[in-house]
Amino acid sequence: MSNIEIKKNKELDCNIVEFTNANFKLVSGSVLENFKIAFKTFGSLNQSKSNAILICHALTGDQYVSGHNPITERDGWWSRMVGPDKPIDTNKFFVICSNVLGGCSGSTGPKEKKDNKDIIHGGSFPSITIQDMVSAQVKLIDVLKIDKLFSVVGGSMGAMQALQWSVDFPNRIRTIIHIAGALKHSAQNIAFHEVGRQAIMSDPNWHKGNYDEEKSIPERGLSVARMIAHITYLSEDAMHRKFGRKLQSRDIISFGFDADFQIESYLRYQGRSFVERFDANSYLYLTRAMDYFDHSETYRKTLEFINNDNDDINYLVISFTSDWLFPTRENKEIVETLNNLSRNVSFLEIETDKGHDSFLLDEPDLDIAMKGFLESNYRNTHE
Amino acid sequence: MSNIEIKKNKELDCNIVEFTNANFKLVSGSVLENFKIAFKTFGSLNQSKSNAILICHALTGDQYVSGHNPITERDGWWSRMVGPDKPIDTNKFFVICSNVLGGCSGSTGPKEKKDNKDIIHGGSFPSITIQDMVSAQVKLIDVLKIDKLFSVVGGSMGAMQALQWSVDFPNRIRTIIHIAGALKHSAQNIAFHEVGRQAIMSDPNWHKGNYDEEKSIPERGLSVARMIAHITYLSEDAMHRKFGRKLQSRDIISFGFDADFQIESYLRYQGRSFVERFDANSYLYLTRAMDYFDHSETYRKTLEFINNDNDDINYLVISFTSDWLFPTRENKEIVETLNNLSRNVSFLEIETDKGHDSFLLDEPDLDIAMKGFLESNYRNTHE
Repeated sequence: MSNIEIKKNKELDCNIVEFTNANFKLVSGSVLENFKIAFKTFGSLNQSKSNAILICHALTGDQYVSGHNPITERDGWWSRMVGPDKPIDTNKFFVICSNVLGGCSGSTGPKEKKDNKDIIHGGSFPSITIQDMVSAQVKLIDVLKIDKLFSVVGGSMGAMQALQWSVDFPNRIRTIIHIAGALKHSAQNIAFHEVGRQAIMSDPNWHKGNYDEEKSIPERGLSVARMIAHITYLSEDAMHRKFGRKLQSRDIISFGFDADFQIESYLRYQGRSFVERFDANSYLYLTRAMDYFDHSETYRKTLEFINNDNDDINYLVISFTSDWLFPTRENKEIVETLNNLSRNVSFLEIETDKGHDSFLLDEPDLDIAMKGFLESNYRNTHE
Repeated sequence: MSNIEIKKNKELDCNIVEFTNANFKLVSGSVLENFKIAFKTFGSLNQSKSNAILICHALTGDQYVSGHNPITERDGWWSRMVGPDKPIDTNKFFVICSNVLGGCSGSTGPKEKKDNKDIIHGGSFPSITIQDMVSAQVKLIDVLKIDKLFSVVGGSMGAMQALQWSVDFPNRIRTIIHIAGALKHSAQNIAFHEVGRQAIMSDPNWHKGNYDEEKSIPERGLSVARMIAHITYLSEDAMHRKFGRKLQSRDIISFGFDADFQIESYLRYQGRSFVERFDANSYLYLTRAMDYFDHSETYRKTLEFINNDNDDINYLVISFTSDWLFPTRENKEIVETLNNLSRNVSFLEIETDKGHDSFLLDEPDLDIAMKGFLESNYRNTHE
């Protein structure tokens, strides 16, 4: 018999909702008999349950959107954005952030144990799509007895989830904030992901994903994958401004393969520290989910099918001038489709040299736009 | 006693000039007691020795600029450009192409044997700079008894060598054709090289460069390094045009980590085939040489020091609109410096979506510009 239970997890400092005998059917056709979603909430749900915002995290994010992250021992990844009196104001809004299906911070994913067994999924974990992540989130929202989310907010892979919400569950959201995403993952983005995956899968410690059984970790492969990805998160201008050709703690070059240049030490550090907090298999499954994301052929028809009466969503789409992973023109395709169908959409392109990662960094224009959008929509629906 | 000898190498189908007891001092301070340069020539040197063109190859190139390459069993890398009646017309010009110092097609490099020993250099090979490559080329030109080259031509790392020739040996060249290069290697380019090197050096088969002794090859690391680099050689538009999100021999996605998308199979093929023809240590040493290349602070002063009377070089600088490794603005820095000093420089930006690799591909505008530049300069100096 199916069962749903919310448990507090002390070690992970979050809640975990466990679905037993739930037979969750994935897009691939595989079925997860049991699954769990790790999540955090911030602020209070109001009586009418009309102030809930779901924040969807990016590829390497987690449920620790704000406050203390017990895994990294650092502040949450969007502490700047989410909290009392912050742009997403937890005095006003009830913020939910869950670890995605396939992730590695407590939700069901390759590093979690198989149903009633002592071994973990590892390489036998089924393939995950963005649609599956959102289906799991809907089940969480059901458990929390929230009929309609005030907003779904996300950047990068989070933007993909937000878009998927608007397509699959348009009547369960009032607004979406879609930051630095696209209707599809481009050939170049698939290429960078593929090289990262090859780095992991060609690490002899990977063992076809079953490294846990072999008591090994494909650290070197994962580290290289992270380094590649990290280059794509920055812009060339930002890299030039921050590092240029500056040397690392040496006046002269070493004529060797040590990290002579600051950009090299920086990347090596990014690789090393990532390995401490992220599971290599999760990286494979989540990058694959992003690669599979593609609404480019179907978006307009899907929206037409959801007629205007059912789709009263207010959309905010944000892009960054120096983002070459999800450039403005790809974000604009979404805006143009919505405009063509007379939906309520605001679009903002933010001038910055910080690249794709801008949404995680100090960008006052982003804060102002998000705060303004959320609060004016909140007033309109609550007055 | 020092000795110089030119030998024909049947297996490599090229000439090799061997310098014995030559004590070649490198920029790093290391000394190569003996060294050798593998080279090919095409066409005939005229009596006045005024028709010699040196072609400098790029990172993964070799001396097989035209004709048959016995290593790959394919046509030379610039057969389109070099040959009888081709843009660089070997009916008219005597073309020399040598494998760079540090390379792996017969010149002294990490995979060649140490002086009078049976073991190879491997990881103990000294660090190489672009300046060292050019110094070695000058020694070859001396052996060939050519006082002044009619032209030095190169793209990418070849452009770096051409620029280095104009700085170090301005009185030994009449013209240079500099394609898709820069005054310095940028932070982003260093970053991509560093990730490639990390992929190689973290392959357990690398053994600190001494994989030959261990009878292993760091194939997987080298393959990943090549895949990363290959992405940077293309443009996003070209990748979108050629591959987009097209699937590989399947109607539906596999929900796994096989190469579902054509771009994935293509990159995997690039990685695999590269391993068969290139030495992993050479890749480390040559990428490092490119990283160290930096004339940005010194170029103007160096040119001022070479006064106009001594520098009668005619320059042709070419860039490609979609090249994001060596973008137009970086090529233009060279042009602007030359213009400021009233040197003879022509500049051409070619509109193409083929990215950095354009100089190796079918670009009729490139052919026309090079042929026109070489032949008009030849007429001017020979009539």
